[in-house]
Amino acid sequence: MIKALVTGFEPWGREKYNPTEDVAKVLNGKTVYGVKIYGYVLPVSFRKVMSLVPKLIDEVRPQIVVHTGLAPGASSIRIERVAVNLMDAKVKDNDGFKPRDETINPEGPAAYFSTLPTRKIFERMRKSKIPSVLSYTAGTFVCNCTFYTSLDYISRNGLNTIAGFIHVPCVPQQVVGKPETPSMDLKLILRAVKTAIGVSKQYLKRY
Amino acid sequence: MIKALVTGFEPWGREKYNPTEDVAKVLNGKTVYGVKIYGYVLPVSFRKVMSLVPKLIDEVRPQIVVHTGLAPGASSIRIERVAVNLMDAKVKDNDGFKPRDETINPEGPAAYFSTLPTRKIFERMRKSKIPSVLSYTAGTFVCNCTFYTSLDYISRNGLNTIAGFIHVPCVPQQVVGKPETPSMDLKLILRAVKTAIGVSKQYLKRY
Amino acid sequence: MIKALVTGFEPWGREKYNPTEDVAKVLNGKTVYGVKIYGYVLPVSFRKVMSLVPKLIDEVRPQIVVHTGLAPGASSIRIERVAVNLMDAKVKDNDGFKPRDETINPEGPAAYFSTLPTRKIFERMRKSKIPSVLSYTAGTFVCNCTFYTSLDYISRNGLNTIAGFIHVPCVPQQVVGKPETPSMDLKLILRAVKTAIGVSKQYLKRY
Amino acid sequence: MIKALVTGFEPWGREKYNPTEDVAKVLNGKTVYGVKIYGYVLPVSFRKVMSLVPKLIDEVRPQIVVHTGLAPGASSIRIERVAVNLMDAKVKDNDGFKPRDETINPEGPAAYFSTLPTRKIFERMRKSKIPSVLSYTAGTFVCNCTFYTSLDYISRNGLNTIAGFIHVPCVPQQVVGKPETPSMDLKLILRAVKTAIGVSKQYLKRY
Repeated sequence: MIKALVTGFEPWGREKYNPTEDVAKVLNGKTVYGVKIYGYVLPVSFRKVMSLVPKLIDEVRPQIVVHTGLAPGASSIRIERVAVNLMDAKVKDNDGFKPRDETINPEGPAAYFSTLPTRKIFERMRKSKIPSVLSYTAGTFVCNCTFYTSLDYISRNGLNTIAGFIHVPCVPQQVVGKPETPSMDLKLILRAVKTAIGVSKQYLKRY
Repeated sequence: MIKALVTGFEPWGREKYNPTEDVAKVLNGKTVYGVKIYGYVLPVSFRKVMSLVPKLIDEVRPQIVVHTGLAPGASSIRIERVAVNLMDAKVKDNDGFKPRDETINPEGPAAYFSTLPTRKIFERMRKSKIPSVLSYTAGTFVCNCTFYTSLDYISRNGLNTIAGFIHVPCVPQQVVGKPETPSMDLKLILRAVKTAIGVSKQYLKRY
Repeated sequence: MIKALVTGFEPWGREKYNPTEDVAKVLNGKTVYGVKIYGYVLPVSFRKVMSLVPKLIDEVRPQIVVHTGLAPGASSIRIERVAVNLMDAKVKDNDGFKPRDETINPEGPAAYFSTLPTRKIFERMRKSKIPSVLSYTAGTFVCNCTFYTSLDYISRNGLNTIAGFIHVPCVPQQVVGKPETPSMDLKLILRAVKTAIGVSKQYLKRY
Repeated sequence: MIKALVTGFEPWGREKYNPTEDVAKVLNGKTVYGVKIYGYVLPVSFRKVMSLVPKLIDEVRPQIVVHTGLAPGASSIRIERVAVNLMDAKVKDNDGFKPRDETINPEGPAAYFSTLPTRKIFERMRKSKIPSVLSYTAGTFVCNCTFYTSLDYISRNGLNTIAGFIHVPCVPQQVVGKPETPSMDLKLILRAVKTAIGVSKQYLKRY
C-alpha cells in the first residue's frame, strides 16, 4: 500500500493554535484515496526538524511526503514550488534559535523544486473549488527548512519519494479580533491536503 | 411571535453568485432563537429596493430587520453601523442605473445609525469565535441604499422596528482563481446572521 | 483675502512622527492659490479638539477649513465625505481617554457631509496625477471627532465656512521596517492639500 | 573604473509606463559613488532577454549588474535574493509568448542566489530611510528570467561579476484611479538603485 507522511507543526510564537497540528493528527492513521497516512506533528525548531525529518522518512518509508505549515495572512492554500537553502528568522523559533542568513546544508544546492505534481494539484483544487495558488517562496523560517531538508535528504539518498510543502491560512477562530486577516475552515484545509495526496498518488501511478 | 425580515441580494455585475441570496433562502421560514424568519432576495437595483423595502416592512411587520449583502474582499463579517444618504455607483446596478452623488431621500438626514444592538452583536460574535468587525461605511451602492431606505422608512413612520445591515465575505468557491481574495464558509456566514438575530431579540426583550 | 484654516496633528501612540504636523507647519503663513493659510497643529485628544476647533474657527474666521490627519495603511489621499457623531477608540488618545460608543454631541445629528467640494477636489487631484479616493469613513477616533466638531460648530452657528477632512498616507521614512505599509512623499501630500484649498476657493467664488 | 550595467524594462501589458525604463535612462552615462553606469532598457520578452542579457554583459564587461523591474502592488523596494529556473506566465509577454512551467536553462540548477550583497544593501537602505525588504521570489515572468539568465551566464563563464535584481513599486502617477495600489516617488526609487550600486562597489573593494 502506498504510504504518505503528512507533517504539521505545533503552535509557535504568540499563536496558541496551529491548524496544521490538527491536519497531521486528524489524518494520522486514515486511508485517503487508497493512501495510508502517517501523520506527525513537528516542533517549530530549525535544528530539530533537520534531524527529525530524515528520521521520519527512514522510519515511515513513504512514497509521498506532504509537509504542511501555517501562513498567517494567506487567503488561499499555497502550494509551494521552491525550497531555498537559507535560514533567516525575524523571530526566534521555539528553541530560541534565530539564524541570520545561514545555509541549511552548506554543501546543498541553492534550491530544490517540489517533486510533488504541483501543477496537477493546483488544477485539481481549482476543479474542486478549493481556493489555491502556486507559490514560489515558502519563506526562510522553519517551514522552508523542513521543505528543503526533506528534498535534500531524498535527493542525496536517491530515494523514490516525492515531497512538497503546502501552506494553509488561519482558521476562523484564530482571526477573531484581527478583522483584516483572512481564514479558511479546517474542513476545507483538510480537503485540500487530501486532494494533494490523491493527485500525488495518481502521479506516482503513471510512472 | 417575534418576526425578522432577512434580506439578501441576487448576484450583480460579473459575479454569478451571491451568498446572501442563499442566506435569505436558507433562513426563510426557519425559526431562529425563537424568531420567525421571513427571507427575501432583493434585486441589485437602487430604484427597486427603494420601493420594495418599505413594502416588505409593511407586509411582514417585523420587529427586526437584518439586511445582508456581499462585500468582496472582506475577511470578516462586517456589522454596519452607519447608512448614508448618498448614492454613488462606480458600476451600473442590474437595471443599468449608475447614480453619481445623488441623495436617496432629498428630505432625509445625512445618515442614520443602525438601530440593531451592533456592539452586543459584535461581542457575541467574538465570544462565538466568528470573525467580525464593526464597520462605519456600507459603501454608496445598493447595499447602503437598502440600509438607508429601511431606517428612513422606519423612522418616518415611527415604527417599533430595529434594522441594520451585515456585509459578508465571498464564499470559498467564489474566490477560486483569485488567490488574494479572502473567503468564509456559508455555514459560518449563516451562523453569524443567526447570531445577529438572536442578540437582536434579546435586546428587544429588555425594552 | 480668503483665509483657510489648515490643521494637522501631533504624533500619537507609538508613532513618533505625524506628517500632518508638517503639513500645518509648512503651510502656515503661506499664500496658496490666493488663499492665506493659517496652519495649526492639534493635540490627539478628543476633549481638547472639541474645545480648540471652535476657538480656532472663531479666531481665524476662515472661509475654508481643511483638517488633515494620518491614515496609516492608506496608499492614497483620502478625501473624507462623512463625519459621524461617534467616538469609539481602540487605543487611548494622548490624554489617556478611550471612549466607547459615545456621541460627540448628544444633540447633534448622526452625521454631517463634508461641505468642501469633495467631488471637484477628487477630480482635480486625478487630473493632477495625485493618487486619491473619496472616502466614506474617517474612523471614530480623534480625526473624525475633529471633523464632526468643526461641521457641527459651523452648522449650529450658521457660519459661511466650508469644512472638510483629508487623510494622508505615511511618509516613506515612517514605513522603513514595515515593508507592506504604503507611503507617499511629503511633497506630494503638500501638493494634495494645496489642491484641495485651490479647488475649495474656486467653489467659493462660484457662489 | 568600476562599471555597472543597470537594466530596466519597457512597459508591458496594459501598463503604459514603466518607471524602470526611466531608471535605466536617467542613470545611463552617470557616475554614481565612483561607478560608471551603463543603462539599458530591456524588452519584456522572455526570448529576447535570454539572448540580450549575455550580449550586454559581454559588451559592457561590468563588475556589477543591477537589473530592475516593476512590481505592481509593492509598497517597498524589493531586493530579490533568489532567481528560479522557471518560466510561467499568466499573461503574454510583449512578443506574445506565454510559457507554462518551462525551464529557462534545461541544464541549469533550480535556482541561483543573488550575488549582490543583498543584506548589506538592505541595511544601508534602512539607514538611509528607504522602505525596502529582502524578497525571496522575483516571480516567474520576464523579470525572474532576466535575473536567472544573468546569474547563469556569469556562473557558466566564470566571470568576476556580481549580479542581482531589484523590484520597485509603481510611481504615484501610475496609480491614479487605483486607490489601493501603493506607490513610490521616482526620486526615491533612483536613490534606492544608487544605494544598491554604492554598497555593491564597497563589497567589491573588500575582495
